Amino acid sequence: MKSQRDRSDLTPFFEPASVAVYGSLKEGLGLGYGVIRNMLQFGYSGKIYPVSPSYSGEVLGFRVYSAVNDVAEPIDAAIVITPPPTVPGIIEQCARKGVKAAVIVSENFAEAGAEGAKFQQQLVDIVRRTGIRIIGPNTVGLFNAANGFITNPYLIVQKKIRQGGIAYCSQSGYVGTAAQPLEDRAIPVSKMCDIGNKCDVDEADLLNYLADDPETKVVAMHIENAKDGRRFMDAARRVVARKPLLVLRPGRSEEAARAVASHTASLAGNEQVYDSAIKQVGAIRLDTWLEYWEVPRIFAYQPLPEGNRIAILTLTGGVAVVGVDVAVSAGLDLARFSPATAEKLKRIYPRLSSNPVDLGPILSVSDNPFAVEEEVIALALNDANVDCAAISVYAGFDDIVAPIVEMFDHLKGRITKPIAIWIYGMKLSAMDEMSRQLEMRGLPTYFYLETAVKALGIAAQYSKIKLSQGA
Amino acid sequence: MKSQRDRSDLTPFFEPASVAVYGSLKEGLGLGYGVIRNMLQFGYSGKIYPVSPSYSGEVLGFRVYSAVNDVAEPIDAAIVITPPPTVPGIIEQCARKGVKAAVIVSENFAEAGAEGAKFQQQLVDIVRRTGIRIIGPNTVGLFNAANGFITNPYLIVQKKIRQGGIAYCSQSGYVGTAAQPLEDRAIPVSKMCDIGNKCDVDEADLLNYLADDPETKVVAMHIENAKDGRRFMDAARRVVARKPLLVLRPGRSEEAARAVASHTASLAGNEQVYDSAIKQVGAIRLDTWLEYWEVPRIFAYQPLPEGNRIAILTLTGGVAVVGVDVAVSAGLDLARFSPATAEKLKRIYPRLSSNPVDLGPILSVSDNPFAVEEEVIALALNDANVDCAAISVYAGFDDIVAPIVEMFDHLKGRITKPIAIWIYGMKLSAMDEMSRQLEMRGLPTYFYLETAVKALGIAAQYSKIKLSQGA
Repeated sequence: MKSQRDRSDLTPFFEPASVAVYGSLKEGLGLGYGVIRNMLQFGYSGKIYPVSPSYSGEVLGFRVYSAVNDVAEPIDAAIVITPPPTVPGIIEQCARKGVKAAVIVSENFAEAGAEGAKFQQQLVDIVRRTGIRIIGPNTVGLFNAANGFITNPYLIVQKKIRQGGIAYCSQSGYVGTAAQPLEDRAIPVSKMCDIGNKCDVDEADLLNYLADDPETKVVAMHIENAKDGRRFMDAARRVVARKPLLVLRPGRSEEAARAVASHTASLAGNEQVYDSAIKQVGAIRLDTWLEYWEVPRIFAYQPLPEGNRIAILTLTGGVAVVGVDVAVSAGLDLARFSPATAEKLKRIYPRLSSNPVDLGPILSVSDNPFAVEEEVIALALNDANVDCAAISVYAGFDDIVAPIVEMFDHLKGRITKPIAIWIYGMKLSAMDEMSRQLEMRGLPTYFYLETAVKALGIAAQYSKIKLSQGA
Repeated sequence: MKSQRDRSDLTPFFEPASVAVYGSLKEGLGLGYGVIRNMLQFGYSGKIYPVSPSYSGEVLGFRVYSAVNDVAEPIDAAIVITPPPTVPGIIEQCARKGVKAAVIVSENFAEAGAEGAKFQQQLVDIVRRTGIRIIGPNTVGLFNAANGFITNPYLIVQKKIRQGGIAYCSQSGYVGTAAQPLEDRAIPVSKMCDIGNKCDVDEADLLNYLADDPETKVVAMHIENAKDGRRFMDAARRVVARKPLLVLRPGRSEEAARAVASHTASLAGNEQVYDSAIKQVGAIRLDTWLEYWEVPRIFAYQPLPEGNRIAILTLTGGVAVVGVDVAVSAGLDLARFSPATAEKLKRIYPRLSSNPVDLGPILSVSDNPFAVEEEVIALALNDANVDCAAISVYAGFDDIVAPIVEMFDHLKGRITKPIAIWIYGMKLSAMDEMSRQLEMRGLPTYFYLETAVKALGIAAQYSKIKLSQGA
């Protein structure tokens, strides 16, 4: 019998050297066909064995086998997208073949009623008996940006997803490679995983695995209910000791808790219990999907702030004040510049000396606004009284992207503290391009000042947790 | 002496038949040149008189006058973008010529220190003495989408801004035609106005004008401090009696109040006083710039909900639960379908009968998913227990835009209650195009479910205010 820790080793799921695929191999629309197409699209280079009793020949260049047992080589993983009544038999055969990990994408198991629950129970029994591990059923499964392994069978028009530090996990099919403009936004992903009905692999397994995963710098987890509260908390603690854990756990309201119960056929659990468990382990609770998708990037490539004092630099004074309100409610203090910094800023322009800094007046009269902006940002961030900064840049039109990106290239060598960049402008093309270029340079970008400030607030919150843990 | 009401008639500002322009006429970079170029770009068809003592000939096809008095015809408005010491003299000459309205874009007045304050005081004196009205100084001024009149002198790469129902007003240069992707997002604008230092025209004048403006269906106002609390409240009441007034008033935190004081050289005013004043007049307070830009669209083209019961229809169950939390905290109740509706939904698919509705399972097996989606949305919205709905659509890739837009075209004739649409997907091109097409059809779209739900919550809040006022 394997130990709990061994059971959390999900390596065969994320890094299989070979995979069997069960599902319709019909060209174009078949879901088995789709998942193979997607693996090829993302550059998965392991061995692929389509399995189908009713299909012969090749699919996308791979020989189709009528049974998994006909394959002579060992197989690490299986992806199963066939009707529920067929799934237990398939998993049984996979287990016998020595397959270690199966992702069951098919729907209509426990979430759909009594009959589906019966098939799901059969899966649980096979897991207990054979030791094969299962993710799902009722899931889009997983994606590994490092090797292009993907279990999503649906059409994916993204060509490449940027490899980076964020692990996105969820109990929902919303979290997957097809539901966010990951490529267009250059979002840096390590792993994605929807654990679906979690008949076997659950949030605790996933957290234990991600705690150890060197590619993952931050874990964003959407969870509605934990299968085992104590295991979940232990695993969450392991994560927090090494990297930030951000938890989106809906159900603050009774209405939401009822909705969870209805769509997952399981109890949502007590809101207060979850809230205090999340706090107790040192994880950070998120409230919205916006925060779930947007906030982790600050952890993916920025250092942690050493304190909670923020500088806010914008191009119009009025905008920044809303940022101050958000900063305060996110636990940040508005930094007070040291007299030396204030003096230097004043020498650049008389009205630059206080925080929030309104760069508008000086930039509108300067001959070299980008050099001035760089200097002011560097002065502010290098003040000992400042721990982090939210910086606004104007992506008004396409031609302004290059000089601003260049300004940040110069600036990068001059600063060591975390920043978040708010981009605004009048052309989506310019805003999107500036965002992509800065993200590729490890600078997190946001389209609202408030999100930039909130991200820094959450970074400071995690930093404080680490300090209190004596790390 | 004019009455207060007459003084709030800002028609000469927004609908001048003729305008004098003061500012550098240097081709390309001159700000006087820039504002004329922008007026032409947006199709302003009134008469334009560039005025410059140091320039002769023509600019962009308009004869340049050395003084405003040389113009034989009457002139309604002036745009002034010259150094502060020159401005009082220019305004004096304009007043003598009979110009009714002057927008002073130039900076470095009271906001910049004692010398600027002196010039600003001279402007106030001229207003008192002559009756000319001034917007500014220190402002990007105004824009009227109906006639293309614009006072912004900076480069604007948007070609056309969609005419519609939203008036955006502010004390900040952030609120203008160059700071938001208004064209790319098809945001429906009636008027925009930055009142800047408000040496004369203030928020109360603007609100009185917008209350009467038939083009404006909803007013979004960013305000840091009111010049006259009672006048502001009276004007706000006049707006609320006719159309919703959404107020973004930062300064909840002391830090923010200090920041206001510092950048406007005026007091922010007491937070509690403002908060209760906003509530008392029946306006709605916003917290973020995101809400300021995103929420008004629901008022611009959707009917008011008659109650606060929301239906949430998504494509994955897990996503909706976060929406339920947001709904509850925005004052909405989750609608319970009537037995008749539940029965009809159940006949379409067994698991469709409860709210939030998870459309995923039925759409993934349906031969005609768009027809099913249309039917389910229509059934939900036509239930007497439902007042509004947040609906999610998947803009995964470009080819899916057309059939979904078509589905909404069919749907429009079948529903009368307000909806907000959450768009998600993996290609920005598809998401942006779907958004534009639906917005052009009067359907407000959002890229996060939470924003869609929040917008409906605010609509329901205003609806309740109207009911309590017996309107």
